[in-house]
Amino acid sequence: MIKNKFLKEGSVTSPAGFRAAAVAAHIKYADRPDLALIVSSADCTAAGMFTQNQVAAAPVLVDKAILQADNKHIRAIVVNAGNANASTGAPGLDNARATQKITAASLMNIQPEQVLLLSTGVIGVQLPMARMQAGIEAAAAHLAAENGLAAAQAIMTTDTHPKHLAVQVELPGGTVTIGGMAKGSGMIHPDMATMLGVVTTDAAVEAAVLDRMLRTAVSRSFNRISIDGDTSTNDTILLLANGASGAPVSDGASIALFQNALAVLCTELAQMIVRDGEGATKFVAVQVTGAKSETDAHAIANTIATSPLVKTAFAGSDANWGRILAAAGRAGVAFDQNQAALWIGVDAPDELQLVANGAPTNYQEAEAAAVFAQPEFKIRLNIGAGRASTIVWTTDLTHDYVSINADYRS
Amino acid sequence: MIKNKFLKEGSVTSPAGFRAAAVAAHIKYADRPDLALIVSSADCTAAGMFTQNQVAAAPVLVDKAILQADNKHIRAIVVNAGNANASTGAPGLDNARATQKITAASLMNIQPEQVLLLSTGVIGVQLPMARMQAGIEAAAAHLAAENGLAAAQAIMTTDTHPKHLAVQVELPGGTVTIGGMAKGSGMIHPDMATMLGVVTTDAAVEAAVLDRMLRTAVSRSFNRISIDGDTSTNDTILLLANGASGAPVSDGASIALFQNALAVLCTELAQMIVRDGEGATKFVAVQVTGAKSETDAHAIANTIATSPLVKTAFAGSDANWGRILAAAGRAGVAFDQNQAALWIGVDAPDELQLVANGAPTNYQEAEAAAVFAQPEFKIRLNIGAGRASTIVWTTDLTHDYVSINADYRS
Repeated sequence: MIKNKFLKEGSVTSPAGFRAAAVAAHIKYADRPDLALIVSSADCTAAGMFTQNQVAAAPVLVDKAILQADNKHIRAIVVNAGNANASTGAPGLDNARATQKITAASLMNIQPEQVLLLSTGVIGVQLPMARMQAGIEAAAAHLAAENGLAAAQAIMTTDTHPKHLAVQVELPGGTVTIGGMAKGSGMIHPDMATMLGVVTTDAAVEAAVLDRMLRTAVSRSFNRISIDGDTSTNDTILLLANGASGAPVSDGASIALFQNALAVLCTELAQMIVRDGEGATKFVAVQVTGAKSETDAHAIANTIATSPLVKTAFAGSDANWGRILAAAGRAGVAFDQNQAALWIGVDAPDELQLVANGAPTNYQEAEAAAVFAQPEFKIRLNIGAGRASTIVWTTDLTHDYVSINADYRS
Repeated sequence: MIKNKFLKEGSVTSPAGFRAAAVAAHIKYADRPDLALIVSSADCTAAGMFTQNQVAAAPVLVDKAILQADNKHIRAIVVNAGNANASTGAPGLDNARATQKITAASLMNIQPEQVLLLSTGVIGVQLPMARMQAGIEAAAAHLAAENGLAAAQAIMTTDTHPKHLAVQVELPGGTVTIGGMAKGSGMIHPDMATMLGVVTTDAAVEAAVLDRMLRTAVSRSFNRISIDGDTSTNDTILLLANGASGAPVSDGASIALFQNALAVLCTELAQMIVRDGEGATKFVAVQVTGAKSETDAHAIANTIATSPLVKTAFAGSDANWGRILAAAGRAGVAFDQNQAALWIGVDAPDELQLVANGAPTNYQEAEAAAVFAQPEFKIRLNIGAGRASTIVWTTDLTHDYVSINADYRS
């Protein structure tokens, strides 16, 4: 049996050989840390997944180029909150490259091409480079293994709390640790926020294997809270492996164990992001079964999970299954409405059946409303077309969402 | 020069030979008319456009079958509010067919297959047939040309006012009148409400020509407020032509004139729907230019127009162009962000340029905010990829939208 051990207060510095620092660089916020630096004592293999948005931010363009050129010698990641360095044109790209140079110079003995960048915040404003430089220099002087939580705090924007975690797993070659931090909130569902994630590990993993494992883990986690391709300007997940544990992830057994632990960690981080969605008061798992393919299931689950009408019904504790079916019907997936069945539940997704053969059962409205009144519940839609299924996590859409987003920049 | 004459207080009974009645059938609402009957004194050619939703309502299924079998002898349309007759299975279909029979019997000398149906309201509840019967019989006894406005009122759900209009146009063969009514609100943008529209005319038009003209008019009007394919369970637009004016629409000149007038009428109705969107306080025209194809332009304009983040920025009078570009970037259309340009304006869409070559101009924030503070404004995004363009109309997303939809069924 696979055993993943969760570390209390775990973070990106839980794996051996990683240090971090968080400083108030005053990029946007006056009174809180807004810049994090994560450094590995040894070269890391690295993998990244990036936004599909046509309007990709400068750090995304730079990171992609770096990883394509050499993904075996990464040493540091700089993350700033308050400014996305997106829609900033050529000066924005220059500023991103300058950030790499400043970091390399501050850390000494590393090259600019060994530094990856993450930014989140306002679009269309150039980075304040003097503040960035002062911040990075200060951070480089205060690196410590104790600063993992501080780093998770520094990358927050509208997040209400930091998101971090670490997991340990026993491999044939020894114990490895995987640490992670993320920020989301903002535009997660239905528009998606800038979602940033940094995952570190002291396992020794070849870059190609690392890349494959990251893709698999993300498909089971972060991609279940977002619409494929419907990403913001800055979305990025980075994974660094420095091998400091001495334990390799190279054979079938170690890859399976590590893959599982990585997916567990990413799922936890993804769910933390959903739970902290702007104005969210409810956490809902939307399961779609009986689809011809997982792609079909995902399309339907996503359409339900992002429907403002469905999400406002969640907010109102109204078990308005008609909106759920109507959303499913417009997902671009053909199915026979007379085969549709819908269940809801608090602990299991099939405690109360609301729809059978496309029409309502004789359930009691009060019973259904009681489920939707819970802070966490599950829905399951079977479209009766096949055997594929998926789960997507979402939240309700509340007045607070509108308040937060109608007033974001001021 | 084409001249369309708008009729004050025009409606579906403005064209010769159409009568209507509105009655309180108590289908859902206790104290207001909720059933409308529209009857032509002569057989009509007819065309319809229907939801693409897999979960199509019983009246949609029935109407499609009717028009496929014989679209030259339609005499009546029954519209009810308060109950969508959707997700009602076989009994729902039986009730729809029974509604046709009741109507035919009440009107005498017509057959059930000459009756079309429209329903809007709650999903998953069977129609109260005794009330439907009493309502239809009462309506049949009170048909009058004066009741066009009453009919427009009877089909409202969360609409705050009735939507109706008539236009006259001089054709070579004489003057013809086109009348229309619609209801929307509810889920219009981003999920789309049940949008119902009835258009009547006393022009003499062959069914095939009528069908083509309806499709063209809808593509320039109702489809600009909705996402193609992203439709509710009941969306329907019906067009009846009874020929009572004696003026034919058959040659190139008359078709061009009639097509224009029909598009104008449909555009007015569609804009009325947007302006009355749930909780909407602002009316925004989103123009996308410089696209490779109209399909591309439409995809981008729709993604912008339905983005909750963009719409909450409208609500907050925040000229947050970064959200507009980010929405455009995730529309599934490839373009070079460094070619993107964005303008906004109150009277014209290009009064103030916010973005050039993908980066902000040195506009004054206060000037941009002043535009977004208006109840009506325009934005224009040029993606620099080609010559195609489109316009989509949308609204802001306010607290009231959440309030209305979190409490719709109770």
